[in-house]
Amino acid sequence: MTLILALDFGGTKLAAATVNTGSQKWLGYERRLSPTNANADTDLEIMRSLINSLLKGAKPEAIGVSFGGPVDATTGKVRLSHHVLGWDNVPLRELLEEEFGVPTYVDNDANVAALGEYRFGAGQGYDSLFYMTVSTGVGGGWILNGKPWRGAEGMAGEIGHMVVDPSGPVCLCGKRGCVERLASGPYMAQDVREVLRNEPPRRLGRQGGEILTELVGDNLELITGRVVSEAAAAGDNLAKEILYRASWALGVGIGNVANLMNPQRFVLGGGVTKAGENFWEVLQRVARETALPEVNFEIVPAALEDDAPLWGAVALAEDVLGLF
Amino acid sequence: MTLILALDFGGTKLAAATVNTGSQKWLGYERRLSPTNANADTDLEIMRSLINSLLKGAKPEAIGVSFGGPVDATTGKVRLSHHVLGWDNVPLRELLEEEFGVPTYVDNDANVAALGEYRFGAGQGYDSLFYMTVSTGVGGGWILNGKPWRGAEGMAGEIGHMVVDPSGPVCLCGKRGCVERLASGPYMAQDVREVLRNEPPRRLGRQGGEILTELVGDNLELITGRVVSEAAAAGDNLAKEILYRASWALGVGIGNVANLMNPQRFVLGGGVTKAGENFWEVLQRVARETALPEVNFEIVPAALEDDAPLWGAVALAEDVLGLF
Repeated sequence: MTLILALDFGGTKLAAATVNTGSQKWLGYERRLSPTNANADTDLEIMRSLINSLLKGAKPEAIGVSFGGPVDATTGKVRLSHHVLGWDNVPLRELLEEEFGVPTYVDNDANVAALGEYRFGAGQGYDSLFYMTVSTGVGGGWILNGKPWRGAEGMAGEIGHMVVDPSGPVCLCGKRGCVERLASGPYMAQDVREVLRNEPPRRLGRQGGEILTELVGDNLELITGRVVSEAAAAGDNLAKEILYRASWALGVGIGNVANLMNPQRFVLGGGVTKAGENFWEVLQRVARETALPEVNFEIVPAALEDDAPLWGAVALAEDVLGLF
Repeated sequence: MTLILALDFGGTKLAAATVNTGSQKWLGYERRLSPTNANADTDLEIMRSLINSLLKGAKPEAIGVSFGGPVDATTGKVRLSHHVLGWDNVPLRELLEEEFGVPTYVDNDANVAALGEYRFGAGQGYDSLFYMTVSTGVGGGWILNGKPWRGAEGMAGEIGHMVVDPSGPVCLCGKRGCVERLASGPYMAQDVREVLRNEPPRRLGRQGGEILTELVGDNLELITGRVVSEAAAAGDNLAKEILYRASWALGVGIGNVANLMNPQRFVLGGGVTKAGENFWEVLQRVARETALPEVNFEIVPAALEDDAPLWGAVALAEDVLGLF
């Protein structure tokens, strides 16, 4: 029995867990929100306290780490975080190896979550798969030949910025009609807000936006991706339209990826993928139409959800120990 | 010194060559056009005669084969040819192994050409690369970790049917705005023909189509992708517009692939890529704009051109012999 420590630096939350190799049940599990004015030092301080309360003096054999931002997985050095200041070029693996004296492996969250779903979740037995998370952003991670494919410089998996509609709305990245621009929760919320500001609900007709505004008590700032999903489920036409566009964009993206890489399986996680049956039907249909008829694949929901990065971190630690 | 036999069943042409391993110069090289009413049997007959005139009784140690259509590389069975009848489910590897009594490996032309450019051409030293051919169709092949990535069922590399403009013209595959629909030679020719039929040159103004029609002596049927390139180089605005759209589509496709897979290098071959400096400038710029700023890559012209499949076939044969 080998004790593994798994860490998840998630941008808005921090989590740590312990497990014995071979087990699929956490021994211990700690989780805390990152404070709004967090920086790398406070994140590390919080993580230390989570670890201490988990380990209680015990020593793990290896540490696996998921980090919410670009990482050089070969050196374990963080490149930066888009959410938390002070992470630029932090040698996270080195820090942890010095502090805990055990082998450590660090990779970015999408790659780690892909590995988690592959080893412990909805990807078990599928040696080639693409994992996607659709929530505040849209990201992805590859398993090819049963191993993570990180790309030449660790940047693979960025399906979020695949252009699927060059005449679509402008994305923060400067391009138009990226998958993330059309399918992420905050962008969906932004788009319905903008429509509602320019065109109040009663003029939209056919229930366009009425249910939406009701759900947030007329405070448009409270609209989120989840509210859009709820309003769509309740029959709001504006919300349905925006959600349709999101599932369409994901379907085109997935179909394009299927043509390009021919993986066996797509595993989709993240809050937006909870948007209901209709969302999944559109996504499956559009992906199928976009892929060539002779290209086969399945699209399934993720199984581990928020814990995918932690389970992937366990897999990283097992790999470091040569257990796989 | 080990004698290798390389075969290329190309759809419109057949080629065979011999080489000693380690050499980059053909010992012998034979090539013939496939007759217009060819079928699998006539192709095989022609190939046999090419082989006999090459080998003159000598026996190769291994055979590598490039086939212009989907192949199950693990069994060496051809799935079908889109150009020549009678290839459905032909066990090409088995046939050749029985006839020549030596180990044989068969794969589809895009995968094989990718391997050729990697081992002998513009991809040497680049362990992750995407090879693309842009001519009568648009196809591609992967090298990842120094090895071909064929996909779960041998279908990887189909960038030709990546959708880059969902409001673009309809492709034979049923979708709109595929890369192949916008960038292949025959489709470019078709599109300028259609414009010229609806709108004769003198009404297009600013030299739109005048140079084009002059180049083909008013016989629009003679317009090809190459004619479009020539007319664009000579300043024809209609040809320039269509060619711009082709390079734009390829640029978006390449940028999307860079985001998704992060390969080191893109190697581009095929007739359309000979369209000149402006074509390459647009393609490079659009690819750079489409990829995220932190995703690095190079796009370079193929080095082996028409011989890429044959050199790739040599590499397949070397692999079969365990020489790599």
